[in-house]
Amino acid sequence: MIDKAIQDLYPEEFAHCYGCGRLNTDGMQIKSYWNGEESICHYTPQSHYTGGFPGNAYGGLISSLIDCHGAATASAAKLQDDGFSLNDRPPYRFVTASLKVDYLKPTPLGKVLELKGRAKEISRRKVIVAVTLSAEGEVCAKGECIMVQLPEDQVK
Amino acid sequence: MIDKAIQDLYPEEFAHCYGCGRLNTDGMQIKSYWNGEESICHYTPQSHYTGGFPGNAYGGLISSLIDCHGAATASAAKLQDDGFSLNDRPPYRFVTASLKVDYLKPTPLGKVLELKGRAKEISRRKVIVAVTLSAEGEVCAKGECIMVQLPEDQVK
Repeated sequence: MIDKAIQDLYPEEFAHCYGCGRLNTDGMQIKSYWNGEESICHYTPQSHYTGGFPGNAYGGLISSLIDCHGAATASAAKLQDDGFSLNDRPPYRFVTASLKVDYLKPTPLGKVLELKGRAKEISRRKVIVAVTLSAEGEVCAKGECIMVQLPEDQVK
Repeated sequence: MIDKAIQDLYPEEFAHCYGCGRLNTDGMQIKSYWNGEESICHYTPQSHYTGGFPGNAYGGLISSLIDCHGAATASAAKLQDDGFSLNDRPPYRFVTASLKVDYLKPTPLGKVLELKGRAKEISRRKVIVAVTLSAEGEVCAKGECIMVQLPEDQVK
């Protein structure tokens, strides 16, 4: 595993996302780490991200985490598939074409959430990513994202 | 159309959601209005909800809007299907079982976004809702939510 988060390697002009941009000081700034097989992110949501009931995360937080972590996973997996490492060059930038989230049980606030992402399918400009979100070892939500790679000339 | 937003009628203990809770002062406080056939919400996202590129909304904002607006739509549609009006009693409270979002084009920040929601299917405790999100008349995203009604004894 390289010790830098994928989001910390995104080119500066793509680093403003509310969910994962290191340059968005109002945002969540999630960090996803690639270990060669899957990406892992730990994130502890603050109390204002509550759902209808205080104590559990709102659905949009969960979909946001799965979306941003999914984009990072797509980036690292595609880079590796192309024969590069995150040490070699900036990661590609992916945008979401489609996102599906199944909410399996309430996701607590104030606990460390663990997201794991894996590329299920990699093609020329598209990566399908499966993500799980767990709290204290229990899977609370599962997601699948179809991610599309931005052309390189938009990234440099 | 009754002149109160569905979210302004939710029982107080369910009014804390970051996306749609009127009691969450840090949140987005979206407002959805039911006209007897569909629900409509207008929302102008602030600049900090940017995606990777400044100028467009991050994917998680779009899924959050579709999710919260979908829950409100389910509530109003089921109430009507049961023979009640939003003037008669507090709306039911729904939670999301599953959410699917297709991102069709970039969603601009700083413009009024319009969400429209319709119930595609209503059963005893489950409502399937279709949502569109448009900016300046163009559909930017489409969503489908499977919403599950919380038991009444949890709502009163």
